[in-house]
Amino acid sequence: MTDAEKHALMANAIRALAMDAVQTAKSGHPGLPMGAADLATVLFTKHLRFDPKDPYWPDRDRFVLSAGHGSMLLYSLLYLLGYEDMTIEQLKQFRQLGSRTAGHPEYGYAAGIETTTGPLGQGLATAVGMALAERVLNARFGDDVVDHYTYVLASDGDLMEGISQEAIALAGHLRLNRLIVIFDDNRITIDGDIALSDSTDQVARFEASGWDAVRIDGHAPDQIDAALADARRNDRPTLIAARTIIGYGAPNKCGKAACHGSPLGAEEIAAARIGLNWPYEAFHIPPDILDAWRIAGLRSRAARKEWSARFDKLDAQRRGEFERRLTGEVPVALDKAIRALKEELAGSRPKVATRKASELALERVNAAIPDTIGGSADLTGSNNTRTSGLRAVAPGDYDGRFVHYGIREHGMAAAMNGMALHGGLIPYSGTFLTFSDYCRPAIRLSALMKQRVVYVMTHDSIGLGEDGPTHQPVEQLAALRAMPNLVVYRPADAVETAECWQLALHDRDRPSLLALTRQDLPALPLELSDENRCARGAYVVEPSSGEAAVSLFATGSEVAIALAAKQRLDELGHPARVISVPSFERFAAQNGSYRREILGTAPVRVGIEAAVRQGWDAIIGTDGIFVGMHDFGASAPYEALYSHFGITPERVVELALARLAPQPSS
Amino acid sequence: MTDAEKHALMANAIRALAMDAVQTAKSGHPGLPMGAADLATVLFTKHLRFDPKDPYWPDRDRFVLSAGHGSMLLYSLLYLLGYEDMTIEQLKQFRQLGSRTAGHPEYGYAAGIETTTGPLGQGLATAVGMALAERVLNARFGDDVVDHYTYVLASDGDLMEGISQEAIALAGHLRLNRLIVIFDDNRITIDGDIALSDSTDQVARFEASGWDAVRIDGHAPDQIDAALADARRNDRPTLIAARTIIGYGAPNKCGKAACHGSPLGAEEIAAARIGLNWPYEAFHIPPDILDAWRIAGLRSRAARKEWSARFDKLDAQRRGEFERRLTGEVPVALDKAIRALKEELAGSRPKVATRKASELALERVNAAIPDTIGGSADLTGSNNTRTSGLRAVAPGDYDGRFVHYGIREHGMAAAMNGMALHGGLIPYSGTFLTFSDYCRPAIRLSALMKQRVVYVMTHDSIGLGEDGPTHQPVEQLAALRAMPNLVVYRPADAVETAECWQLALHDRDRPSLLALTRQDLPALPLELSDENRCARGAYVVEPSSGEAAVSLFATGSEVAIALAAKQRLDELGHPARVISVPSFERFAAQNGSYRREILGTAPVRVGIEAAVRQGWDAIIGTDGIFVGMHDFGASAPYEALYSHFGITPERVVELALARLAPQPSS
Repeated sequence: MTDAEKHALMANAIRALAMDAVQTAKSGHPGLPMGAADLATVLFTKHLRFDPKDPYWPDRDRFVLSAGHGSMLLYSLLYLLGYEDMTIEQLKQFRQLGSRTAGHPEYGYAAGIETTTGPLGQGLATAVGMALAERVLNARFGDDVVDHYTYVLASDGDLMEGISQEAIALAGHLRLNRLIVIFDDNRITIDGDIALSDSTDQVARFEASGWDAVRIDGHAPDQIDAALADARRNDRPTLIAARTIIGYGAPNKCGKAACHGSPLGAEEIAAARIGLNWPYEAFHIPPDILDAWRIAGLRSRAARKEWSARFDKLDAQRRGEFERRLTGEVPVALDKAIRALKEELAGSRPKVATRKASELALERVNAAIPDTIGGSADLTGSNNTRTSGLRAVAPGDYDGRFVHYGIREHGMAAAMNGMALHGGLIPYSGTFLTFSDYCRPAIRLSALMKQRVVYVMTHDSIGLGEDGPTHQPVEQLAALRAMPNLVVYRPADAVETAECWQLALHDRDRPSLLALTRQDLPALPLELSDENRCARGAYVVEPSSGEAAVSLFATGSEVAIALAAKQRLDELGHPARVISVPSFERFAAQNGSYRREILGTAPVRVGIEAAVRQGWDAIIGTDGIFVGMHDFGASAPYEALYSHFGITPERVVELALARLAPQPSS
Repeated sequence: MTDAEKHALMANAIRALAMDAVQTAKSGHPGLPMGAADLATVLFTKHLRFDPKDPYWPDRDRFVLSAGHGSMLLYSLLYLLGYEDMTIEQLKQFRQLGSRTAGHPEYGYAAGIETTTGPLGQGLATAVGMALAERVLNARFGDDVVDHYTYVLASDGDLMEGISQEAIALAGHLRLNRLIVIFDDNRITIDGDIALSDSTDQVARFEASGWDAVRIDGHAPDQIDAALADARRNDRPTLIAARTIIGYGAPNKCGKAACHGSPLGAEEIAAARIGLNWPYEAFHIPPDILDAWRIAGLRSRAARKEWSARFDKLDAQRRGEFERRLTGEVPVALDKAIRALKEELAGSRPKVATRKASELALERVNAAIPDTIGGSADLTGSNNTRTSGLRAVAPGDYDGRFVHYGIREHGMAAAMNGMALHGGLIPYSGTFLTFSDYCRPAIRLSALMKQRVVYVMTHDSIGLGEDGPTHQPVEQLAALRAMPNLVVYRPADAVETAECWQLALHDRDRPSLLALTRQDLPALPLELSDENRCARGAYVVEPSSGEAAVSLFATGSEVAIALAAKQRLDELGHPARVISVPSFERFAAQNGSYRREILGTAPVRVGIEAAVRQGWDAIIGTDGIFVGMHDFGASAPYEALYSHFGITPERVVELALARLAPQPSS
């Protein structure tokens, strides 16, 4: 059997499994796996370095199927290569409840799925983060420990999404030469010929961003092999634009949108079996072909063993740090550093913006633990994310812990996902809270994949002032709190900010978002505590003197307003208590008795937050008073805005008094 | 005085006003207006066609300051050119409450502000919609009526945002040669030199997307003039990459990030006045220079009059249609068409997915009114947005009413904003609801600018089935309902879908979003009504027989579940009523008595929606029962998912019964 014949048989195994699984599921996307089978076969049998028996080997190459709808390509490969949790039964259960073979690849469902993909463009942008993580860790731990590639298979849809440009430009700028993107250029989208909607010269486009880019025939194994070999030697990231035929092997539907996202149908599958000379039953892979794949799966075993031998010879300190960082465990130094900061803050009681307080916390965090890698979407001085002595990574120089992501919020968030998934780093980065909208699809993936990514979102309300309504978040807090598995923090002073950072860094299984002010906030009137008060999401800042008539709940910058209102209400003979609610999610997770204690029994509850009410009813009840925003903001100095929109102690007192007054019977 | 001297004086007038206004406001961005003053002066005095005395002249050229932070450039121009509502007092009130001169240009605040900008990339992408609207209306009304250009001033930030790629690729593909983008290439971002984060060759990048692109010196009036003249003759969209010095004229801060986003300071301003030979007081423009600007403002007056003369000669039908379309008024034919459809549906009672019902409605809408222009982000067959006989626009052929936007949700949404702002068209377009996240910043601008844009968001829950959690919206309904001024509809059957379309098209001052199912839904058990039942946001579908024990509130696909649960509860002796809630926003806007009537007095309230609870407390109370989603979805056939996540009539009945049962005293 010639190499070409063997290649064809191995590639056809992918095609057959993809056809069969989609047909059995009665839904799915056979077109991409069949079209890209040649690309994947060459990549996985000749270039990608991995070990199915040790799928989490830290120095493995990463493969990202950015075109996640072609999930059967990945599942077929994992089965054929011998990944133990990807059995033929799993392929037969494609797209069924509880299977590892979800409609799109879901991180955590099976070994070998390096990231969740499906929302187009995300895989490519996540891979940029993986490739950057590889270089950053290489700079710290050396070639002996970290020295691998990140491969991406991307579709025209990935490249049409705007996030792709952010990813491409960032990777090109940083010269991430370990990143190799194969573009499955099949010229077919769901609507039909790509000429309906696009005429971009992708090779020229990537070159404009500093990539090397080549065109090949995606069905010619030799061309694929040569292009991948060249790419691995490149000093820049590489695009391999591989012209393919979607649904290759389906005699009537190949090259057409008809095979993109629907089962081929029994008749077409039968015809494909004949055309591909694949006379086997559904889901049956002949032993010799399966053997060939399984042998390919063993290809990097020696390399993996050599790596282990090298790793074992490292000095204990370096080996220990690498291992700890990969587990994601945070050193105790972090808690000590936060404790020391809280002690200082208890003494100095600084009046600072929480974005500045975040910088104070980060100064300690970054000094205490080496895992963090910061950044900003071109708002470094505003987000306060770059601490003293934090070097920035630069093209060809990755010995840094700060990334100038540029004005690319979406690409930044996805890159952070990639770094977190890669392991060894805790990424955090900033933009304005209102621009959380720009990166929402990537934040969603942080949450869905349960990744420790910390979003530092400053300028968190009308408190940013003059920039006006486009820059003033109003609905973003509610929109983010609606997202499962994301913890949103809105700390009220420097101590709370430090506590929220501590919680975020310890939360290994979920992303956190810190909403921070531009404007200065006074320190809360609290004594130093060993407890992390923010951990339970809400706590009493000031109890009432005597039975409470009013409970005042507030977050962030509005806690100071609540405290001022309490003072006035107390003076007027209506004892009030003030509760800070730094995290709705953490508070919602408390047991009933703690929740009842915090909610209290005062007849009047007021919620104060310079944002929309949605979500607050859970705390103040549907008949609670809410002092916040009801529409978009405006452009003016922030004090004028708070007054204009009635988010003031006076207004809180006025509304509470009206509620306390005996109601005229109606 | 030479032309060059005159140009310099006129440009310096912009520079001086920008310095002074930012200094007076103590915040703002002087760098861009000073750097781009030469570009703007040539554009506004020699190319842009407009009339300050008739600022809404339909055939005016549009100017979009995509780099909205440079708002003082636009405000200075409007004042200098003689726009009546932009007085010198307004410039002195820059960034103050209630002024027309907000921190970023806000649509509706002053004539000559064609769109709200500030969130980077939006202006450019909105301009693509304006340029497309121009060509589409030109195809319908001819050169005599519609024949103008759209100019954009964009910054490096605009071009780094991913949305820019979607916009550029779409404009290049459609050959929108009336679109001319001037790139203020000052190589400075907030963080510093652009080399910190970018090394894209923008000229090559635009060329890769089918644009003509040139480089010029942005301070050489002759080069600017020639480039603009060439661009106007081009058969493709044009990028003019103009190398400029940010803060041109500020002797110490020019060319540096220091002048990007902060006042220059009194000392630097004094030095700039000397360097620019501008010995005038703050905000003072010498009469001869003001005159020169005012004369430039009159430049297109003759053209405007000629246009009016041509327009008056049109036949009454065409003139009438153009005028009506610009007012945004919807013809009565729409209501008749919806009425006819509702009559048919009352007879046929089809069991259809609401995405299909939306297509049924659109068939009537598109036949009845010519204003609509549909589209899809490459999900045409899934979003059901292309009705029979609707031609697609194509490169060079704009006589169509459907746009293949490609896999570019964000660019699509922004282009729709541009079409709505341009006037004469009602844009609607589709993607999957989960991908509303991709276009959220543009949806926010639809809402902030009060534009009639209709978002058709299908596959609106776990009901989409096998595609899995990445494609299943869970938090999107809450996140969208949180946004001020956006109306979210989730209709429950074909009649409700038709009614929601009717409401959306009549709502001239706000965007609407229709959340539609993939799966079939039965017709609600209702008689034909003259009333649009959805108009009040919630209504009783089935009252209880006798005093209600349970009120069941549901939206969309879950109304059928509520109806089934009611039947069982009734059988068990617990009379239940079913309320459909197609729009939270419309229901919240009803008066107290209607709201009380709908909420009812049943001791148990249940909310049913295959999404997160956030927002539902307003309807069911904090102690209401909620049957919905608590986490992300999963991949499986949709019936299995509804069962798995417990969104079933059985579960509703079980929870209601548990609440109705006498509680053991504790």
